Amino acid sequence: MAHGIQNETGLFCCMRTLISETISKVGKEILLKGWVNTRRDHGKIVFIDLRDRTGIVQIVASPQLVEGLHSEDVIYVTGLVKARPEKLVNPKLTTGTVEVEAKKVELISKSAELPFDMGQETLQLELPTLLDYRPLTLRHPKVNAIFKVQEVVIDSFRKALKSQDFFEFQSPILIPEVAEGGAEVFKVPYFEKYQVYLSQSPQVYKQILVGAYERVFAVNKTLRAEPSVTTRHLAEVTTLDAELGFIDSWLDVKESAQRTIQFMLNAVGEQCKDILQEFDTTIPKFTPEIPMIKLREAQEIIFKRTGIDHRQEPDLGPEDEREICRWSLEEHESDLIFISHYPVKKRPFYTYPDPDDPEFTMSFDLLGRGTEWMTGGRRINDYAKLLENAKIWKLSPERMGLYLQAFKYGMPPEGGFSFGSERITMHILGLKNIREASLFPRDMERVDVRLSTLK
Amino acid sequence: MAHGIQNETGLFCCMRTLISETISKVGKEILLKGWVNTRRDHGKIVFIDLRDRTGIVQIVASPQLVEGLHSEDVIYVTGLVKARPEKLVNPKLTTGTVEVEAKKVELISKSAELPFDMGQETLQLELPTLLDYRPLTLRHPKVNAIFKVQEVVIDSFRKALKSQDFFEFQSPILIPEVAEGGAEVFKVPYFEKYQVYLSQSPQVYKQILVGAYERVFAVNKTLRAEPSVTTRHLAEVTTLDAELGFIDSWLDVKESAQRTIQFMLNAVGEQCKDILQEFDTTIPKFTPEIPMIKLREAQEIIFKRTGIDHRQEPDLGPEDEREICRWSLEEHESDLIFISHYPVKKRPFYTYPDPDDPEFTMSFDLLGRGTEWMTGGRRINDYAKLLENAKIWKLSPERMGLYLQAFKYGMPPEGGFSFGSERITMHILGLKNIREASLFPRDMERVDVRLSTLK
Repeated sequence: MAHGIQNETGLFCCMRTLISETISKVGKEILLKGWVNTRRDHGKIVFIDLRDRTGIVQIVASPQLVEGLHSEDVIYVTGLVKARPEKLVNPKLTTGTVEVEAKKVELISKSAELPFDMGQETLQLELPTLLDYRPLTLRHPKVNAIFKVQEVVIDSFRKALKSQDFFEFQSPILIPEVAEGGAEVFKVPYFEKYQVYLSQSPQVYKQILVGAYERVFAVNKTLRAEPSVTTRHLAEVTTLDAELGFIDSWLDVKESAQRTIQFMLNAVGEQCKDILQEFDTTIPKFTPEIPMIKLREAQEIIFKRTGIDHRQEPDLGPEDEREICRWSLEEHESDLIFISHYPVKKRPFYTYPDPDDPEFTMSFDLLGRGTEWMTGGRRINDYAKLLENAKIWKLSPERMGLYLQAFKYGMPPEGGFSFGSERITMHILGLKNIREASLFPRDMERVDVRLSTLK
Repeated sequence: MAHGIQNETGLFCCMRTLISETISKVGKEILLKGWVNTRRDHGKIVFIDLRDRTGIVQIVASPQLVEGLHSEDVIYVTGLVKARPEKLVNPKLTTGTVEVEAKKVELISKSAELPFDMGQETLQLELPTLLDYRPLTLRHPKVNAIFKVQEVVIDSFRKALKSQDFFEFQSPILIPEVAEGGAEVFKVPYFEKYQVYLSQSPQVYKQILVGAYERVFAVNKTLRAEPSVTTRHLAEVTTLDAELGFIDSWLDVKESAQRTIQFMLNAVGEQCKDILQEFDTTIPKFTPEIPMIKLREAQEIIFKRTGIDHRQEPDLGPEDEREICRWSLEEHESDLIFISHYPVKKRPFYTYPDPDDPEFTMSFDLLGRGTEWMTGGRRINDYAKLLENAKIWKLSPERMGLYLQAFKYGMPPEGGFSFGSERITMHILGLKNIREASLFPRDMERVDVRLSTLK
């Protein structure tokens, strides 16, 4: 059963050494386990780049030892770690100061021939091919690294909120009513008899839970049946959501959002240095106090800078977002900027209107490098007003019963914010299409497999 | 806008004090924010138990100050913290050594009259009422505490896996094919045109990712359309899943599962001491090496102890599970026990058969206190064998394309394990119905609202 290799040097050889550990094992015999990344034949010797989860190391072997081995074969290699002569050190590999002289090679799992070359520094593939071969392309170090960044994004989101004394909860997928306006919703015939929906947002639940835990957050899937194939939209994303009660003002919400995003970006900057370098990028610039202006101020600035007059528009268009971010970088040295006071009619029914300017809301978007990253704001916490608004928005008070009930029984002033982990990963790494930032992207054309190939 | 209270003692009073902090503020004037938990009128003075996310404290007020206030009203209280005389100390409250003399009380949000008494130590409600009023009942400290335990369960699962160098990923909800046998699946008309399903398990994805990250875990929603209303089943649960590659034997999987569950139970034991006490329970007893026996051995033991002969059965029945757990506790002082070697025909198509006994699998269940907690085992990592089995199990190799592809291109020996956070929470706290361990339980009869009340 056991795949440990019996060897005259004894038991120690049977403990697997991770590739990242090889640099500290010069002169020792070790056992490595991994995939053949590339193979280069040089007559009497063969070089194999062996890959495991910690990196790549060069194996030197006689042709007989590695006969028939190809890329993606899983092999176990017993060998001697040797320091490379200085002129042969490979600065591109973290293990570039060593190589491993193979003494024994065991084939564990044979790979079929690859449909394309996996040995390039960047995979030169069209997006459909990249996704058709997802299990394979995810093994490529540069594709693989995208989701290491995403893991840090999500993990640091949790850490940021926990440090602010928030409670983590799991938000439902199946919901009885569509509380958010705008995007399309997936319908589920529930036990063949009832109509329920897939959650577009944990909004309803995080607000309910403010009544029980005051400060809550969730990392959860949200689903949108948006009938469009853009570079920014997916049918399924992982959303990062937070909500907090007992605020003194909507600015407390912005403050918490600001602390959270700053913590997250710093975490990525520190933990993903090499990856950022590989993608030839840096984390966005930001200042301790991220600049914030009202929508109407932003439009005024854009008008002055470009002559384009969008001062009556209810929202910023894509070019407006890019322009105001350019302004923010020039004037405030910040790639991030908050825009507040969007019109009441452009925001969901629960958004709090500014008492001093009731056509506008105490809500904000965070823009980063020319595009929207996050949205948030204060919510209405008055039961009667919410009930009234639900009716205006044509929501069923019956199906929304649980949500309304939370406010019926005393709810403090509260607000929250929300953003997508795929989108933030995409923008940090400068990816061109959000599908690259989703492990298994779902859209109108694909749910793992291309839908057009199925009945 | 600001809800800070202006007061002659100055600015300091405007900073909120959390209730848990009151015990260290004797002699100070503070601002508390929370819900009226209970109100007791004693003629010239009124006692209010004020509740926030950190606890409950007694407020002493004159009737005029708190006129008309009822349970669940949100109030802000400015007052003086006083030490209680020794004979009036309330040992049931962590703030029982102090009380707060109210100087000013502000009503922030009025609650409707409550449908039942929220002031009892344990809510005496039938399950349907408990769930019909979920936003309210979640505010009750003993209900509220269930999900604090669940948060620790999930958080410690993540910590346990990270300490074993696992990578966290987000598993899809929408899937093209049902890889797991057994439980029913929800169907989604995808963009009105294609049929997709809601994920019953991240099995397919965690196995694919072993090829890219070697060791992966996920905390995600899984959905099952089980047409039964039992005390142990929900339509939607949060599953804790792990998978690891380069194992030397299926016992490596069991070892990782064992370390994980031990870490989690210890975390609950340490972080939820008070809650366990309140529920009059303890974490299950376990030993450093959790006992493990084969299914056939377990059935032999049961036969010897009870005379009931289930030695030919392919699985343990509920009474068998209870009996073998009793045996484990008596013989090994362990509430937990692994049962291995379930028959091939009772396990999914990817389960690894034991070469020495090919009718049985290298899989295991973990039983705890008389019932199943977790399942796991080694998987087949040979592409040809998986393809063959998929056909036998009548799965579409086309819709399963991504999964099979992962094994086509070289996959190490691997395995994994999985369990439900609701079920483990239920069993730790000794709850009678799994619905109590789900914030917003979904079953055949309820998706927040009672489905029978809807069209």
